[in-house]
Amino acid sequence: MRWLRYSLEGKTRYGMLDENDRITAVDGCPFQGYETTSTRLRLEDVKIEVPVVPPTFYCVGLNYTKHISTEGMSIPKKPDVGYRANNALIAHGEDVIMPADATRVHYEGELVVVIGKKVRNISVAEVKDCILGYTIGNDVSERNWQASDRTFWRAKNADTFKPMGPWISTEADVPSMQTVVSVNGTESTRFETADMLFGVEEFISTMSRYLTLYPGDIVWMGTDGHSPNLQPGDQVDVTLTGLGTLSNRFVKEGLT
Amino acid sequence: MRWLRYSLEGKTRYGMLDENDRITAVDGCPFQGYETTSTRLRLEDVKIEVPVVPPTFYCVGLNYTKHISTEGMSIPKKPDVGYRANNALIAHGEDVIMPADATRVHYEGELVVVIGKKVRNISVAEVKDCILGYTIGNDVSERNWQASDRTFWRAKNADTFKPMGPWISTEADVPSMQTVVSVNGTESTRFETADMLFGVEEFISTMSRYLTLYPGDIVWMGTDGHSPNLQPGDQVDVTLTGLGTLSNRFVKEGLT
Repeated sequence: MRWLRYSLEGKTRYGMLDENDRITAVDGCPFQGYETTSTRLRLEDVKIEVPVVPPTFYCVGLNYTKHISTEGMSIPKKPDVGYRANNALIAHGEDVIMPADATRVHYEGELVVVIGKKVRNISVAEVKDCILGYTIGNDVSERNWQASDRTFWRAKNADTFKPMGPWISTEADVPSMQTVVSVNGTESTRFETADMLFGVEEFISTMSRYLTLYPGDIVWMGTDGHSPNLQPGDQVDVTLTGLGTLSNRFVKEGLT
Repeated sequence: MRWLRYSLEGKTRYGMLDENDRITAVDGCPFQGYETTSTRLRLEDVKIEVPVVPPTFYCVGLNYTKHISTEGMSIPKKPDVGYRANNALIAHGEDVIMPADATRVHYEGELVVVIGKKVRNISVAEVKDCILGYTIGNDVSERNWQASDRTFWRAKNADTFKPMGPWISTEADVPSMQTVVSVNGTESTRFETADMLFGVEEFISTMSRYLTLYPGDIVWMGTDGHSPNLQPGDQVDVTLTGLGTLSNRFVKEGLT
């Protein structure tokens, strides 16, 4: 099934999205409990929102070998997770605003894992039970700032640099998924989740040895391949097998 | 004035703390609006909670020269902010649990700025208007993991590694504050906020050029000096001029 977070008439709530793109609104949320309502809506009549605003926003860097070699990094020997910031999140369909002084902006299409249960110190085999579902992320990056700054604060966490969505799918066959990124409708990058250095279960089990994962936490799983330098007006679509397509237009600050 | 976040009989709320440590409970919170209630409580009768769980948890690394040279780092040329994770937050009086395999755990006493208003692209002079107040943080760090890992995920963000509190003071004379850290009642480190490389206004103004700050966001301002290797049973008190004292005991995982 699919969980959609949407807004209508100024109110944001969750709904279940059926195969005909009809929404059944719920009271509550998939993390703390919900009840279905009698409200039925059509997907095209609502605004899609970021599927969850996480308590903690985890992001795996350097998890595919082609991307690592392209960016000139060395291959990690163990799964050390990183972080991103909530200010940067935007929804499917919203614009990525490239700051006026940003000159080398790249996409990074990623699988996103959404945590559904509070867990600590779980085995690899137990990880699947704590996952609510999966969505798509675009880990937008400004490569000059990534090289010049001591942290990723603006290279990866400038406002609007973290598109996520369009919804959470509770099922995914992670080992056999393809990620396809298109720019203005033309395929630009394609890779297999099977090529991850450290898989979802290994990462989350390792993290849980030292930290508690909470309902709504998200883990972005890294990217493969290389992006062209994006230009104002470009539309980037990230499609993952079974999860739909996350689409965002890139525009220049001050020119929107 | 002082804002306290506390719990009593299973309910967590905010209150205003007067100079006699009496609490006036409020409905709502200092960030989205509040009304005072007729409930009066004594500080010693409630459990002190983390003063705010931030939407984004910023932390300035390497912002005092003595600490930078001690840790063998080079002095930053510009204010690049970093991040910490909400899972690691604990309140005044709660225990820092040192993982079983943690061998070199240090304290880092820090001034914490609490954002009160949504702002973007503000000048140095405008920063004071977006600050709700100040509290104290202890940026607990495991130095071996800090050296061996690619990120700070367990070195600085293991559960319980981010004590913060005890409350938010809306007034502070930042340029003339002293930070004193004591271990088991004996002074161990003392430094001046005046020795910051980049001050509160410069950091927040710079950040706001690329990102929106939201009510409840926190910015930890870095530390000076050096910590001894903490041992199970140690009590660490961090005192900042006018902000009170943040006290936490350090215990070993499995031995609590």
